[in-house]
This record gives sequence, C-alpha cells and structure tokens, in this order.
Amino acid sequence: MRDVTIIGIGLTQFGELWDKSFRQLIAEAGASAILDAGISGKDIDAMYVGSMSSGRFVGQEHVGALVADVSGFSHMHIPSTRVEGACASGGLAVRQGYLSIASGINDIVIVGGIEKMNDVGGVSATETLATASDQEWEAFFGATFPGLYAMIAKRHMYEYGTTKKQLAQVAVKNHANGALNPNAQYKKPITLEYAMNATIVADPLGLMDCSPISDGAASIVLCAADIAKKYTEKSIKIIGSGQGSDTLALHARRDICTLDATVHAGKMAYKQAKITPKQINIAEVHDCFTIAEICAIEDLGFVKKGEGGKAVENKITTLDGSLPVNTSGGLKSKGHPVGATGVAQIVEITQQLRGEAGKRQVKDARIGLTHNVGGSGATCVVHILEVA
Amino acid sequence: MRDVTIIGIGLTQFGELWDKSFRQLIAEAGASAILDAGISGKDIDAMYVGSMSSGRFVGQEHVGALVADVSGFSHMHIPSTRVEGACASGGLAVRQGYLSIASGINDIVIVGGIEKMNDVGGVSATETLATASDQEWEAFFGATFPGLYAMIAKRHMYEYGTTKKQLAQVAVKNHANGALNPNAQYKKPITLEYAMNATIVADPLGLMDCSPISDGAASIVLCAADIAKKYTEKSIKIIGSGQGSDTLALHARRDICTLDATVHAGKMAYKQAKITPKQINIAEVHDCFTIAEICAIEDLGFVKKGEGGKAVENKITTLDGSLPVNTSGGLKSKGHPVGATGVAQIVEITQQLRGEAGKRQVKDARIGLTHNVGGSGATCVVHILEVA
Repeated sequence: MRDVTIIGIGLTQFGELWDKSFRQLIAEAGASAILDAGISGKDIDAMYVGSMSSGRFVGQEHVGALVADVSGFSHMHIPSTRVEGACASGGLAVRQGYLSIASGINDIVIVGGIEKMNDVGGVSATETLATASDQEWEAFFGATFPGLYAMIAKRHMYEYGTTKKQLAQVAVKNHANGALNPNAQYKKPITLEYAMNATIVADPLGLMDCSPISDGAASIVLCAADIAKKYTEKSIKIIGSGQGSDTLALHARRDICTLDATVHAGKMAYKQAKITPKQINIAEVHDCFTIAEICAIEDLGFVKKGEGGKAVENKITTLDGSLPVNTSGGLKSKGHPVGATGVAQIVEITQQLRGEAGKRQVKDARIGLTHNVGGSGATCVVHILEVA
Repeated sequence: MRDVTIIGIGLTQFGELWDKSFRQLIAEAGASAILDAGISGKDIDAMYVGSMSSGRFVGQEHVGALVADVSGFSHMHIPSTRVEGACASGGLAVRQGYLSIASGINDIVIVGGIEKMNDVGGVSATETLATASDQEWEAFFGATFPGLYAMIAKRHMYEYGTTKKQLAQVAVKNHANGALNPNAQYKKPITLEYAMNATIVADPLGLMDCSPISDGAASIVLCAADIAKKYTEKSIKIIGSGQGSDTLALHARRDICTLDATVHAGKMAYKQAKITPKQINIAEVHDCFTIAEICAIEDLGFVKKGEGGKAVENKITTLDGSLPVNTSGGLKSKGHPVGATGVAQIVEITQQLRGEAGKRQVKDARIGLTHNVGGSGATCVVHILEVA
C-alpha cells in the first residue's frame, strides 16, 4: 500500500444558504481545493463525493457524475463515485479516495462532501434525516434522531452520572470555537445559562444540544505521498483509516452508551498509524448532539468510559486544554450539512496541522484525528493525520 | 496491485416481488453468495452495496449499515459502504470492492446490489428514476428516460440508418435468452411482430424496447487471488476494471449516439486486461432500452460505430452468434432492479465462465465483459473477467 497525503483543501460557508444551489456549493468547494493544491483538472484521476440524501433533499441522485460535470471535468470522463453512509457519507468518501490511491490505481483524487438541507420543499429535513435510522424499527414509529440521542443521553446520565450541565458545556465550548471560524454557521459564543435554559427538543436535550440543519460543501485533494512534493511543501499525511458498522437500530446494541462502530474504527486506525490515543494532539469528533461528543471521546480512548462528561467539565477538550476537540466549532456551531461534515473535519485538522487555523490555532499540533458517524452509530469512519 | 477473483455468486428472483422486502432480498442474495463461496461471515473484511435510490423508493438511506445488519454481521462491525451512480450503482460497488482488495487492505469482500422499485408508494418509479438525469436541465422540464433514450434512437436512425426492426430484434434476442434464465422477470420469448407492434412509449421506442420496473438483488464474493484456492477451484479472475463519467444532461454531449463514458471505461479496462475487444467471448451490456444495447456494442469496440443495428440483424449477438450479448436476458427480459443490475451482470458472466449457465451456456467462453450504465451515460463501469 502506498502512502497518501492531503495536498489541498476547500470549504464553503456553512449555514442557511438560500442563494446558493447544490451544484454551486460543490463546485465552489472543489475549485478551492484544486487551487489550494496547485493542480489542474487534468492531474485528477478520480473523484469521490459524499452526500447523504441528495435524492430526497434536492431530487438529484447520480451526484458523482453531476459533480464531475459542474466542475468542468465531464469531457475528461474522470471516474466519479458517490458514496453514502448517512451523516458519515463524507468520511466514507475520504476513505474510498484514500483506498484508491493506496491501491496504486490512482495518483491524485479529489474528494467532496455536500448537503443542501434547507431549500428543499416538500418533506421536512428531519423526516429525511430519519431515513438514516432503521426505517422499519425506528422511523416508521416516529423516532427521530433527537429522540434516539436523547435515549443515549438519559442512559449515560443514569450509568455514569453525566449531567445536563456537562452536556451544555460541550455546546458552550463548541460555540466558543465556532466564533473563531469564519466558515461557521453560528459565529457567536453562548453562555452556560443560555445553553441550559434552551427549549427542550427531546428530554434531556435542549436546542443547544442539537446540531443545526445546514447547507454547505467541503473538498480535499488527495495525492500519493511519493509525488506530493511536486505540488506542495505543506502536505499532510493520512497515517490511519478505519471504518466500522453496527446495528442500524439503536435498541439492538449491546450497550447504547457505547458506539461500537467508533471503537472498531478507532482501533483499526490506531493500529495502522501505530499510535495510541494519547498521541493525538487534536480531534474533530461527530457532535451531532452534545452527548455524541461525550461518547466519542470515550469510545476513541481519549478518556475512560463514563468519564467524558467530567473531561468536558475539567476543560480538557477546550482550545487550550490538553486535547482540543472540535476546534472548528464542531457540527454544533460550524454547522452540519450531513454529507459535507466528514470532509470538513479533514479540512479543519489539515488547517490546524498546517498552522493555518487563525484565531483557533492549536499550538504544536502534529497528529490529529477525525471521527464521523452515520445515524445513531451504525457507521463510523476515523482518520488520523500527521504533518508529513 | 494484487489480483482479485470472484469466488461466490448469489442472485434472487427478479420481478414484481410484492411479498419480499428490501432487507429480505439483499439478505437472500448475500447468503447465497456466501454459501457459494464456502466462506463464513468472519472471513469477510468489508462490504459494498450498490443501490440507486433506496431513500426515495423505500425511505431508507444508510443501506450499507443495514445490509451488514440484516446479514447478521453487525456484531463484527465489518465496514460496509453504499455507493451510488444511478443504474450503474451495482457496477460501482463491484469496482470499489475490487479496489479495496487490490490495495492490499482487504482479502475478502462481499459486494451486493439491490433495488426495490414496485412496492414503494407515493412517488412513481419513473419520477424517482428521473433523479438520475439532470434535475435542473432535464427532469424539471418533464424529461424521463424513455424520452431521453428515444432521442438517442432517433438520432442513431438518422445518422446510421438503424431501423425499428433492428431495435425490436434486440428485444426478441434478449427475451429468447431470458426464457432460459430461471431468475428472469420475463421467462417468455416474444416474436418480432409482437415487439414491433407494441404500444409506443416514446417514439420510436415501444414497450418492448424498454426494460421493466423490477425488484431484486445480487451479490458476489471477491477474494485476493493468492488465497482464493483456499475456498474454491473455480474462481474467476477480474482482469480489467474501468470507469468513466460524462455530462449528466444528454444535450451537453458532443454526440448523443456515443456514450463517451462507455468508450473511456472500456479502454481503461481493455488496457488493464491487455486485450482487445476481439478477445471478448461474451458480454452483458446495459440494455435499459434496446437502442442502448446497440450503442454499447459499438462503444465497446465490438463493431464499428453505426454498425450495431446491422450486427444485431446479422445475429452476431445471439446465443450461438460469434459474440453472445446479454445471455441472461439482459435488463430487458431478466429485469432491471437498478442497483442490482451491475452486480447481476457479474453473476451471469461468472456462471458462463464456470460453465454453469444451464440452457443458455455459451460454449468455450473464457473471457467475458460487463457494461453497466448510469442515467443516459453520465456514469459507466466496465469489468473484464477471465477463467482463473
């Protein structure tokens, strides 16, 4: 297997983008990544696109071909493939791009992630998001993701004494970070009091425990390590890639407080990277709900099971803590255009490892991790990046 | 890159399967392939699933995880990824599985393809299929696939003198083959007169020029060639894999009678296999409409551009012709559950190369080709298989 590096990144504004179409967003992110990498279209061997539900949101399947088309590459007939794993679609696209270079088939691959979730008409975004849960055992009976994650939160509180205040502290931290991110949907800090008193969505989760409905796109350029120097001196190496799956329905898990797919994907990535969780300097984890960030830092081995809430309370995961988590603002504050999220996480870690993260820069970060979850944890993708 | 072989195949009945659910179908195909390969679940390193529009058809995205779940593999957390490229979704899944073994990351991968298109409620299948076309330039204005392929047919007739009779002869041949396939949706031969006098769907295409709406699933087990002998003596080697893309909208092509994505994917696969089109003994091509089969045999280099119609008339592509095409009955007669089709094509060629195709067995076939198209040709995947 060949080593693979990231040589370009691109990110659109995240938010309610009523004046930008699906195709405009992905073209913008892709063009930014290509410019950043200093490559031209003819250098690209393949494209991968992560999108969760373009068919339902904007009436367009077949978005692999669409993305090649709107990027102006259709005349070159570059293979372009969409992958889908609910909110982990972006991470899966990164992994497929990575594998295709590691295999030796491709040298340079562009990976995109996109979702347009606001201006969609007809069915509500929440109803379409519920197609990531088990249709026959969950969605059919009216379960939605706030409800499913609320059950995880309730159980986590019961098992480990996690508090509503600790959940709120995740939101406060991520909003503080998002306020420093020009691309974030919400560039405003919130207070603990504001978070704790927000309208209840699904007890114990309030509005500030939930990531928003977002539009946005992200893109990266992957390159075989042996030729990366041709394009850039600041490439970032992918040293680990892991993926795991689990039951689609939450009730069928051995323990709803542990995302075994995360544990599995993390172990796979750590093993490949030949590192332990302690060596990670910075992480972007999948905080679709505040409880999800607490589970993630436990399941990835950063803290012991049950101690995620305390770690947040003790400010271990803040920008100046020992392990800054979601420096971008996370899904909560940066926004969560579901198919884009996994790719945007890679963009953030790459910016951090390059030392280009501006006001939210973490000092001396050399190894970073991304963690992207589909549904309530039936799919998980983990990547580990290192300064090349 | 490592060599990759096919060691197991599974196929459900294709048809209007009102009494079988999405999850039943994919579990059935997967279990058949696993039994055929003689592997157990713990041997499987990864899964790939092709499905075009499960989100719209059955309200279920995230079907990679679902398939791992209903197959009983969720507790092993095997990575499972859905890929989508409209009606080429199955072929794309095969290619991703292939790449993941070629890369050295996986040894054994199970690939599935599925679509449930009949018992879907709400939106019509044709409307959902139109999401494979360009939403903003085609579907929005009411264009559907019969209309788009009718334009290709009209132009092909104008440019090359292709006749309605030649189109009908594709259908007659494929129904004759389908009558010999126990899994086919339509196991009945049709006459030339019947095909030519069928109700017009979109001039010049009549009902017998169009593939049906189908339910069904297919699955294959891929294995690194160096360990295949552990499981079977009858493995089939993948000697070429190609993929191409093109403009999503038909009107934007340089020539609507040529699917450049097919030409590109074919060349890529031939180059890797180090063979010419003349060395192919048997092919499964994407006959979503009869005109598509004529374009395919031209674009794949079996006959010169414009001579596809004549080749059909001269019976070159019949079961006892010099290049049997769509021995399974093709999409027209076997059925076209869109996400399953690309995988089912591999199943057919594998059966033929193993000498297990029963009444439709082609004698001495050693090298076979599959050709899977998304939309009106914006995505194409070609695989070349050889007796190992």
